[in-house]
Amino acid sequence: MSRVLTGLDAIRQDLEACYRDLHAHPELGHQEQRTSARVADRLRAWGYEVHEHVGGTGVVGVLANGAGQAVLFRADMDALPIEERTGLPYASTATDCDGGPVAHACGHDMHVTCLLGAAQLLAQARDLWGGTFIALFQPAEEPGDGAKAMIADRLTGRVPRPDVCLAQHVLPYPAGRVLTRPGPALSAADNYRVIVHGRSAHGSAPDKGVDPVVMASMLVVRLQTVVSREVAPLSTVVLTVGSIHAGRNPNNIPDSAEIQLNVRTYGDDTRRQVKTAITRIANAESAASDAPEPPEIDHFGSFPPTVNDQETTEKVAAAFSAFFADRAGTLDLQTASEDFSEIPKAFGAPFTYWGIGCVDTVAYEAAARRGTLSSDIPVNHNAAFAPVIQPTLDTGVQAAVVAALAYLGTEEK
Amino acid sequence: MSRVLTGLDAIRQDLEACYRDLHAHPELGHQEQRTSARVADRLRAWGYEVHEHVGGTGVVGVLANGAGQAVLFRADMDALPIEERTGLPYASTATDCDGGPVAHACGHDMHVTCLLGAAQLLAQARDLWGGTFIALFQPAEEPGDGAKAMIADRLTGRVPRPDVCLAQHVLPYPAGRVLTRPGPALSAADNYRVIVHGRSAHGSAPDKGVDPVVMASMLVVRLQTVVSREVAPLSTVVLTVGSIHAGRNPNNIPDSAEIQLNVRTYGDDTRRQVKTAITRIANAESAASDAPEPPEIDHFGSFPPTVNDQETTEKVAAAFSAFFADRAGTLDLQTASEDFSEIPKAFGAPFTYWGIGCVDTVAYEAAARRGTLSSDIPVNHNAAFAPVIQPTLDTGVQAAVVAALAYLGTEEK
Amino acid sequence: MSRVLTGLDAIRQDLEACYRDLHAHPELGHQEQRTSARVADRLRAWGYEVHEHVGGTGVVGVLANGAGQAVLFRADMDALPIEERTGLPYASTATDCDGGPVAHACGHDMHVTCLLGAAQLLAQARDLWGGTFIALFQPAEEPGDGAKAMIADRLTGRVPRPDVCLAQHVLPYPAGRVLTRPGPALSAADNYRVIVHGRSAHGSAPDKGVDPVVMASMLVVRLQTVVSREVAPLSTVVLTVGSIHAGRNPNNIPDSAEIQLNVRTYGDDTRRQVKTAITRIANAESAASDAPEPPEIDHFGSFPPTVNDQETTEKVAAAFSAFFADRAGTLDLQTASEDFSEIPKAFGAPFTYWGIGCVDTVAYEAAARRGTLSSDIPVNHNAAFAPVIQPTLDTGVQAAVVAALAYLGTEEK
Amino acid sequence: MSRVLTGLDAIRQDLEACYRDLHAHPELGHQEQRTSARVADRLRAWGYEVHEHVGGTGVVGVLANGAGQAVLFRADMDALPIEERTGLPYASTATDCDGGPVAHACGHDMHVTCLLGAAQLLAQARDLWGGTFIALFQPAEEPGDGAKAMIADRLTGRVPRPDVCLAQHVLPYPAGRVLTRPGPALSAADNYRVIVHGRSAHGSAPDKGVDPVVMASMLVVRLQTVVSREVAPLSTVVLTVGSIHAGRNPNNIPDSAEIQLNVRTYGDDTRRQVKTAITRIANAESAASDAPEPPEIDHFGSFPPTVNDQETTEKVAAAFSAFFADRAGTLDLQTASEDFSEIPKAFGAPFTYWGIGCVDTVAYEAAARRGTLSSDIPVNHNAAFAPVIQPTLDTGVQAAVVAALAYLGTEEK
Repeated sequence: MSRVLTGLDAIRQDLEACYRDLHAHPELGHQEQRTSARVADRLRAWGYEVHEHVGGTGVVGVLANGAGQAVLFRADMDALPIEERTGLPYASTATDCDGGPVAHACGHDMHVTCLLGAAQLLAQARDLWGGTFIALFQPAEEPGDGAKAMIADRLTGRVPRPDVCLAQHVLPYPAGRVLTRPGPALSAADNYRVIVHGRSAHGSAPDKGVDPVVMASMLVVRLQTVVSREVAPLSTVVLTVGSIHAGRNPNNIPDSAEIQLNVRTYGDDTRRQVKTAITRIANAESAASDAPEPPEIDHFGSFPPTVNDQETTEKVAAAFSAFFADRAGTLDLQTASEDFSEIPKAFGAPFTYWGIGCVDTVAYEAAARRGTLSSDIPVNHNAAFAPVIQPTLDTGVQAAVVAALAYLGTEEK
Repeated sequence: MSRVLTGLDAIRQDLEACYRDLHAHPELGHQEQRTSARVADRLRAWGYEVHEHVGGTGVVGVLANGAGQAVLFRADMDALPIEERTGLPYASTATDCDGGPVAHACGHDMHVTCLLGAAQLLAQARDLWGGTFIALFQPAEEPGDGAKAMIADRLTGRVPRPDVCLAQHVLPYPAGRVLTRPGPALSAADNYRVIVHGRSAHGSAPDKGVDPVVMASMLVVRLQTVVSREVAPLSTVVLTVGSIHAGRNPNNIPDSAEIQLNVRTYGDDTRRQVKTAITRIANAESAASDAPEPPEIDHFGSFPPTVNDQETTEKVAAAFSAFFADRAGTLDLQTASEDFSEIPKAFGAPFTYWGIGCVDTVAYEAAARRGTLSSDIPVNHNAAFAPVIQPTLDTGVQAAVVAALAYLGTEEK
Repeated sequence: MSRVLTGLDAIRQDLEACYRDLHAHPELGHQEQRTSARVADRLRAWGYEVHEHVGGTGVVGVLANGAGQAVLFRADMDALPIEERTGLPYASTATDCDGGPVAHACGHDMHVTCLLGAAQLLAQARDLWGGTFIALFQPAEEPGDGAKAMIADRLTGRVPRPDVCLAQHVLPYPAGRVLTRPGPALSAADNYRVIVHGRSAHGSAPDKGVDPVVMASMLVVRLQTVVSREVAPLSTVVLTVGSIHAGRNPNNIPDSAEIQLNVRTYGDDTRRQVKTAITRIANAESAASDAPEPPEIDHFGSFPPTVNDQETTEKVAAAFSAFFADRAGTLDLQTASEDFSEIPKAFGAPFTYWGIGCVDTVAYEAAARRGTLSSDIPVNHNAAFAPVIQPTLDTGVQAAVVAALAYLGTEEK
Repeated sequence: MSRVLTGLDAIRQDLEACYRDLHAHPELGHQEQRTSARVADRLRAWGYEVHEHVGGTGVVGVLANGAGQAVLFRADMDALPIEERTGLPYASTATDCDGGPVAHACGHDMHVTCLLGAAQLLAQARDLWGGTFIALFQPAEEPGDGAKAMIADRLTGRVPRPDVCLAQHVLPYPAGRVLTRPGPALSAADNYRVIVHGRSAHGSAPDKGVDPVVMASMLVVRLQTVVSREVAPLSTVVLTVGSIHAGRNPNNIPDSAEIQLNVRTYGDDTRRQVKTAITRIANAESAASDAPEPPEIDHFGSFPPTVNDQETTEKVAAAFSAFFADRAGTLDLQTASEDFSEIPKAFGAPFTYWGIGCVDTVAYEAAARRGTLSSDIPVNHNAAFAPVIQPTLDTGVQAAVVAALAYLGTEEK
């Protein structure tokens, strides 16, 4: 294993450049043309059999290296519609087709780079292991339909069935740390769009209209009580209204207002309970406003819960402990969600998903001492979020190789 | 007077076609190129001295017709960013440069057509009156800066100083009615933009951010109490939050939220009191959310109150009573606002501003009997608002001519 | 008239003592035993025919003094459940039967004293006027059922039918001023009790209950929009939730919550519109909370609008102008309500109701200059409200006598 | 052990009668005179050394029975200010000194009866065990200061130091079940009283006052966001506003409003975070209302977290498993709080606290099948809550004896 990883010194500089390039050129979900083209070029150069345009912009590289197990490692490629405020020299100034800002505020650029690094190291050290390594680069994790798109585009018929699936994610812990968790690790997520209908009127004549701005605001306020009053205190639920939009100018009461909301739950009962509550409250707030029409409620995206396989997680965790020593640890239960698990589910394979720290250790510990972690350390999706390149990158490459080799028969060779 | 108006029969069909054309081709404030070009062409054809591009797209036609007083009559030309839902054959399908909908949902197309009709009739019957008629077509009444733009562009230096200024507006009263009001007629209006600052975070980690969607929603809710609890019940105030915008997707807590609001008041004390209350509440709601920065509050547009000159209004009202008999009446105090009064103020001239009904009489009376006026009769700025062409158009042309001739010495000739 | 009033000097000291005594011994509505007993004693002493216990604690004194018209003058006697905070030496320390505080925070003690003064002066100067003077002391104006109680107890059968009915009220204007208003003077008022039903549970298990505290709070918040968004801006409406009660301890979610609200309107349409809106919103807020039962809405008290008779008001105003010169003025439209008009309505008699100032003139003018009238001058029902005894008391006695003598034929004698 | 428990058959009828009597005669915290007198009588009759009036109404019975360990068993005696709605023949109709309702809606009557039963059985079977049994009957668990009151009244100096402390609580699980939990079992609780200050005015003049009803309602609404937005989703917090009070009548804006709230937390950081948030929000809501004074915030009661000793809990759980077989189980983490742990803390003794089911099994299972447990099964503090007498009572007596005998050397004898 350490012999495979000795190659890292030689490629580190190139990987860092690759990371900075990806970071500076983020692409929204399903639009990862540039990213996926670069990924495919590299995989091809190292001898991978490359499947492009899987589910749109997905790329899969397969390296068959004799007898042994098959390991699928997945990285997600897409960025977010956020204006980067990191002040980094390689910060994104990219825009989407509508001119909106785009940034890698969730660290998928790091996931891509680490998997590229691992794929290269494994390709360069074929004599040290046996089996098949499948490097999968998935589009559109953020909108939640990238994994499904690859599966719908016959992913399982194109590549060998893996014996195990692996994935990792940068998280706001000290860089250098690798954190695993057996069982439930990430929440289920559901997206809803609610359009409440008012009746437009001149701003000076509220009595002639029905005000959807007030209606939507009351709805946002009322939805807080789903978490604070309706759900059992010990059943963790997060309900975030991430967007609200109505009207174009100050003096016109618009016809309608739209909110989009995201719900995180860890159990099916609670998931249903929250859906019922949202529907009930949206209808009641419309009734309170004497709305001319009931609200439209659209369930437009969902993520499954991520429940790590017990045995797989223990095996990977043991490999991490052996390699990383006290830099390996236990991951807290996360309120985030992922569509990674769709892929192992499609193959019928067990999986585990772990976190790697990405925050400067000195800054992290100083904030921890001050008790200001939550205000001083930007988290994923914050405009100021960006991993420190090192030791995050090294650790991510190492973790990927170490976990893969736990299955690829390195010891035996 | 009636001899001037006999010409109406001959031009009615053309005026109606002109109206439908304007209605189908609405243009937002400061973008009235097509409208103003057509206006200028017509005025020139009838012998008016035409000033184009006054304050951008403003047009003024001057018809000097011997000794006598000078009357300025103003019509506003701009449309609204509203998607028309009238179902009319000549409904707007226009869009602005961003692809947003545009419609004449406030009836300015009718104001333009009526003034064109009056201008033509007066030009065709020069022997029946004496003095100077100034037909002023103003841009950008809706954003509130069109009159100021014309004045800033040396309006008062370009055309003769009028002895009186006149204007009219279609309102949701029965078509055929003409309604005057001495003294305060329209409210003052003030626009505010409030940006509240939160801290962005992933939607699953509200504790890592400060949620500006909840903050803005609470602000909208709290602002209702300015009207319901703070202002003296007998001091009429309208406070409308016409727009609210935050976030782009459901699962990301955005950095900030923006609301735009419009305030109508009839007295300086109340105007100040409301401004103070908005500032105080926006700051307090930010404090309640533990916002990292105080809100930004921007006062970005205002309309003066429209206080009709007593003597002028009485003179015009008397002329209306003589011509329209019981179709002339008293206008209710209006909660709307106008920038028309900037123009007479710039000239130091007295003015009056009146309403003309534009709703089908049968529909109006049926709704009145049912007590459903407010729900069945679309008002200005509603997507379904549109005047019935007749008798609205005839009445508007007649009212303009009758009022103008009250000053242009028709009797003496 | 001035000869009648010369008697005031002799009784002023006694009247002031009477006022201080009443002020220190306030009694809630229907409990005015002490007050009415003292009133009855005085009336009897001056030769009035006294009717006691009319509608519970009501007292009417009738002084028949030959031919002429009959004038009924009404004073209300009841106090409020408010803890006095005036710091006056004669401040109330009284409590009701439940130990709750009681105070004359609305000035009815002054009304009683002024009418006693006028009744005494008229009795002492019978040779200077002719007709019948009816001094009516009404219970329970605050709860709104005192006038009705007297009428239900056959008031109209017990005393002569008056030709005119009069009443006056202390208001936060400079003491010495007397203010009249023809036509609508006071609003209609409606009281509602809304009980929202939740489901009780231990405070640690909100998911096991339905929280009526949150439900009632949302209801209070939502009701603000009736005024701010539903009613036409030019239709004055006041909606006050004067009480809210739920629960007895911090850690138990109670079964229900009760709010009491008071609505002021000036027109029947608006009165109905507000009632409909309250019902709709209370039901919707219960639905939003998933309440096990709909709310109970009880309309439990109402005051008629007070619309002063035009002719009567002009006659009284003329008498005031003659006597008080520039201390007579016009009363602003009031948002308060009164049950006085029930009495003239029961007799079929015209009426007028006026205001007398009760604030120290120096303090009033200083506050007006500072623009702090609303914060510095306590108004009726404020715990710090109390009239300055003089010139309030003199003015109230004089106004009562002057207005009565406008009908009691003083000039002729 | 089973020989000690054979005595239960002989006393069951008397214990059930005792339970019904206590249930019908509930007493609020610190007022348990009747209850404690009956307890003391019984203890004395069985030969206990009885300490009365410990901390007011507390009673402790000590039965020294030779060499061995000392076991303290605690039962709480107080009832709640709730109107019982169970429909039981022995339902409470009691009232407190103010006439308010009182009921044993938390099951402390059952705790008392079970401990009396265990105390009697142990006294009757002295030959079967050795050591000291301390039966402690505590007042005022609900207000949270009963344990502290006994300790302040020198509890530790009056009775022998126990080697272990035990307590049990009826909970809405199937009757017959006994549930233990090592480590954190119950939350910390904090009570706050917040008085927001407005300015009183007549209900018709909101502009003259500052409305504390609206202010308090907004505060209740805003406090929901502490749970929904501020606290980390994985840190369980419950924030209940259990009471809100303002005003006495509908048409008077009161001077102030009071809310009482209860907060449950499981960690010191969160406990501090919530306190800070309450303070910040109360201040901000006052500022939003332009309150004349800041709010008063009073932290008036708190419960420690209940963290069961690991070793003690395992020992007791093992004894339960042996006796109750599959009726013994694991207790869920509870959101309720207790002051029991103050007592072992005062003695420096380890402790464990467990739950006993009290719901009819058939009803429970039917509700579980329907998925309507939360709506159909009344929980502690609900007006309809009451244990089924059997097998709850038998189970509670047995659990107390079994747990005590795990320490009292029954096996050796």
